[in-house]
Amino acid sequence: MAKKITDRSEDYSQWYQDVIREAKLADHSPVRGCMVIRPNGYALWENMKEALDGMFKETGHENAYFPLFIPKSFLSKEAQHVEGFAKECAVVTHSRLKSVDDGVEVDPDSRLEEELIVRPTSETIIWDAYRNWIQSYRDLPILINQWANVVRWEMRTRLFLRTMEFLWQEGHTAHATKEEAVEETERMLEVYRTFAEEYMAMPVKTGVKTESERFAGAVETYCIETLLQDNKALQAGTSHFLGQNFAKAFDVKFQSSEGSHEYVWATSWGVSTRLVGGLIMTHSDDQGLVIPPRLAPTQVVIVPIWKSDEQQENVLEYCDTIIEELKELDIRVKLDDRENYNPGWKFAEHEASGIPLRIAVGPRDLENHNVELARRDTLEKNIVDRDGLGERIEKTLKQIQIDLYDSAKKRIDENTHTVDSYEEFKEVIDEKGGFIYAHWDGSSETEEKIKDETKATIRCIPLNEGEEGKCMVTGKPSRQKVLFARSY
Amino acid sequence: MAKKITDRSEDYSQWYQDVIREAKLADHSPVRGCMVIRPNGYALWENMKEALDGMFKETGHENAYFPLFIPKSFLSKEAQHVEGFAKECAVVTHSRLKSVDDGVEVDPDSRLEEELIVRPTSETIIWDAYRNWIQSYRDLPILINQWANVVRWEMRTRLFLRTMEFLWQEGHTAHATKEEAVEETERMLEVYRTFAEEYMAMPVKTGVKTESERFAGAVETYCIETLLQDNKALQAGTSHFLGQNFAKAFDVKFQSSEGSHEYVWATSWGVSTRLVGGLIMTHSDDQGLVIPPRLAPTQVVIVPIWKSDEQQENVLEYCDTIIEELKELDIRVKLDDRENYNPGWKFAEHEASGIPLRIAVGPRDLENHNVELARRDTLEKNIVDRDGLGERIEKTLKQIQIDLYDSAKKRIDENTHTVDSYEEFKEVIDEKGGFIYAHWDGSSETEEKIKDETKATIRCIPLNEGEEGKCMVTGKPSRQKVLFARSY
Ligand SMILES: [Zn+2]
Ligand SMILES: [Zn+2]
Repeated sequence: MAKKITDRSEDYSQWYQDVIREAKLADHSPVRGCMVIRPNGYALWENMKEALDGMFKETGHENAYFPLFIPKSFLSKEAQHVEGFAKECAVVTHSRLKSVDDGVEVDPDSRLEEELIVRPTSETIIWDAYRNWIQSYRDLPILINQWANVVRWEMRTRLFLRTMEFLWQEGHTAHATKEEAVEETERMLEVYRTFAEEYMAMPVKTGVKTESERFAGAVETYCIETLLQDNKALQAGTSHFLGQNFAKAFDVKFQSSEGSHEYVWATSWGVSTRLVGGLIMTHSDDQGLVIPPRLAPTQVVIVPIWKSDEQQENVLEYCDTIIEELKELDIRVKLDDRENYNPGWKFAEHEASGIPLRIAVGPRDLENHNVELARRDTLEKNIVDRDGLGERIEKTLKQIQIDLYDSAKKRIDENTHTVDSYEEFKEVIDEKGGFIYAHWDGSSETEEKIKDETKATIRCIPLNEGEEGKCMVTGKPSRQKVLFARSY
Repeated sequence: MAKKITDRSEDYSQWYQDVIREAKLADHSPVRGCMVIRPNGYALWENMKEALDGMFKETGHENAYFPLFIPKSFLSKEAQHVEGFAKECAVVTHSRLKSVDDGVEVDPDSRLEEELIVRPTSETIIWDAYRNWIQSYRDLPILINQWANVVRWEMRTRLFLRTMEFLWQEGHTAHATKEEAVEETERMLEVYRTFAEEYMAMPVKTGVKTESERFAGAVETYCIETLLQDNKALQAGTSHFLGQNFAKAFDVKFQSSEGSHEYVWATSWGVSTRLVGGLIMTHSDDQGLVIPPRLAPTQVVIVPIWKSDEQQENVLEYCDTIIEELKELDIRVKLDDRENYNPGWKFAEHEASGIPLRIAVGPRDLENHNVELARRDTLEKNIVDRDGLGERIEKTLKQIQIDLYDSAKKRIDENTHTVDSYEEFKEVIDEKGGFIYAHWDGSSETEEKIKDETKATIRCIPLNEGEEGKCMVTGKPSRQKVLFARSY
């Protein structure tokens, strides 16, 4: 079989596209910058959603749904927000088409009085609603999350990592005190870190963004950042402390238990289908996708092999007992008994689509009371006893989850450097890439200069402050080292 | 406490709005015709989604996601489809705003070459993708469902029942043969019927639509129809056999196992947040929302009652044992121990929001080893023994589900009439409303005449054909009685 996936060492960007195509995760759509998420990709996103949704609910949040459209005037109510989001967005101006000779045309008579913006994020429409919901301290906190599609008119797109329309969740909370809101912001950052590391097996660094990289309208933006196989960083999730900015913009006050009227404190936080891109670039290899077992839609695939009808019957019966055993253990198992495809073809397909474990069963395995067990991550194959297979698989799935995390952690650690001079910084960023810790004087000018000269940005200012020092560029005092990288 | 919900007998439409407001299901939004689905409403929709999604997966379907935007030219590819859907829709014409003195304006330089339509339904964008996915009979069937938001520019909207943006699922399947596609259409109709009756406790009639009421682009539209408390019908779900119309419009052919190239057969089917409106108008009463237990986000609420601190401690401990027992039985239970609200206020709130069972526990209940158990549907209260409470509640929840269905069935049966003459028809429709079976000659002219004169439409042609007869209007031959009603 011809190799369908480009090697990473040859062309990483092409490899990424090949993996997505061969694993049937997504397609480009005829609408520039939008993607079609295929069943394999969507099932992965569904598992991510389910895990995150459970964590949100455990921390007291409820889901709700707000309108897709935002009146144009809403965007300009929060001064910084409009700067960040009004620029590139989808604008609805008309509400009707009319038939003409060769198709349909926009009916000029249907022009809207006020244009509508397809939401790039929902702070404004949500805070407009919160004004009606919040009167007293008894109405607080409001802890709401929304699963939705959003649109940002991106010029350079890449499947999952940056698309014009994407799926995400956005949490929007309202609190009586600053302390509570900051606590919530940090709590959700921790939820994201836990999800990334424990479900996606994707190690992340946490910290806050510099002023220039902050969310438009936020007082502080917390983030999780990971390092992908090509040594570029990916912002995988953000949690914003919004202060009273949106409460002031939408005039949302509450009566405190003492009777005073005060502005409400806010947070928002989100992760998106971009996580799927991060997952792919964290674990996959030249054979295709690798998915951590906790998120794999199918954890074990069974491929029966036979020649005669009699063999077929016996092999399938044997497989049935395995399926039953695995289902008892809540393992997501699938039998691939398609007759139109041969085993070799199936093996390649399951490898490309990243199923963590494959069991192959042929007539000889029946005789010997064995199965062949293959690990997707290591590509290791073993003949193992049918007895105790369920437990063995359960253990192996857990081990794969750990091994994937450990191996990603090792890769990221090896590609995280600390430098003392700007010269060393430029050398490392050019020759190795990766994460770099270095001192910075805290000014936007220096940050900008570094970005212009090296294409590296400050990914975050770590929360656990390190030692003081001197900025590698200006020599001015630096409170702590910050984390740099080139990024997606 | 002042009565916050208008009686149904007084003003049914106002009652509906009051229930939605008091149960905190949804709000009107500042975008005309769009709604904000509040946590209580969304949790109900989530439960519906979960049940339906399970049924879709059991029948072999997978979820996927297609773009929000459809290029304008796609809509005109299927001639009937464009007639039905191109008329009132949201049209994106620009991709950028620019800052001006007092806010933002649409940047005229960002005008799109081809306008984008916010999907009113996704047949066109999906069949464009299917062309790339389908080459051989081995690629069939494709059994895909999408959970999404869609937009139809409605002029007269009503929360849940008809909104400009709504949430729904749309199944889109592709098959090698006509028989398979028809079978799929009927299978999904049956899934919808089962869901409506077994989960929503909402009895429905099934049948096919007349030509004039058919989905734009369908060969046959199957539907489930229910009758609401005000004796108006509601179309609650549709399943369309699309023939080869979309395959021809988007040139989707497959190579059969014999080597010939043939157009693919299609179906599509959908239900939406409109179901929430149907649920409200099927079961609720003058006290507020009534939710069948199988879909209730909270099935049992416990209200502890105390005066002294010591009582509080003891009552809460007693409640804990109940919660533990109910959770063991997978019953969704919530403790309402808010200190800012008194028990009477809580009772009214839980009644308005439709929680099927309420347990009240005070100090005297502890002494007597009792609880007070109140049914939301019948408003019946009983002092019951603490021993065996879990089982009793489990049984009662099942009974409520049955009783709600039976009572809705009885109401619909009582309001379903059969008439022989047009005079009788007009009398019944004016004086009683409800479902009416009557003979019809099968022509669009007669259908139109009846609609003009009585505002009643043919809701469906029942699948189990009845006896032949003569049209009540024209006296021409009729193959069977069909089902009429005024509708939402
Ligand atoms: Zn180093
Ligand atoms: Zn009658």
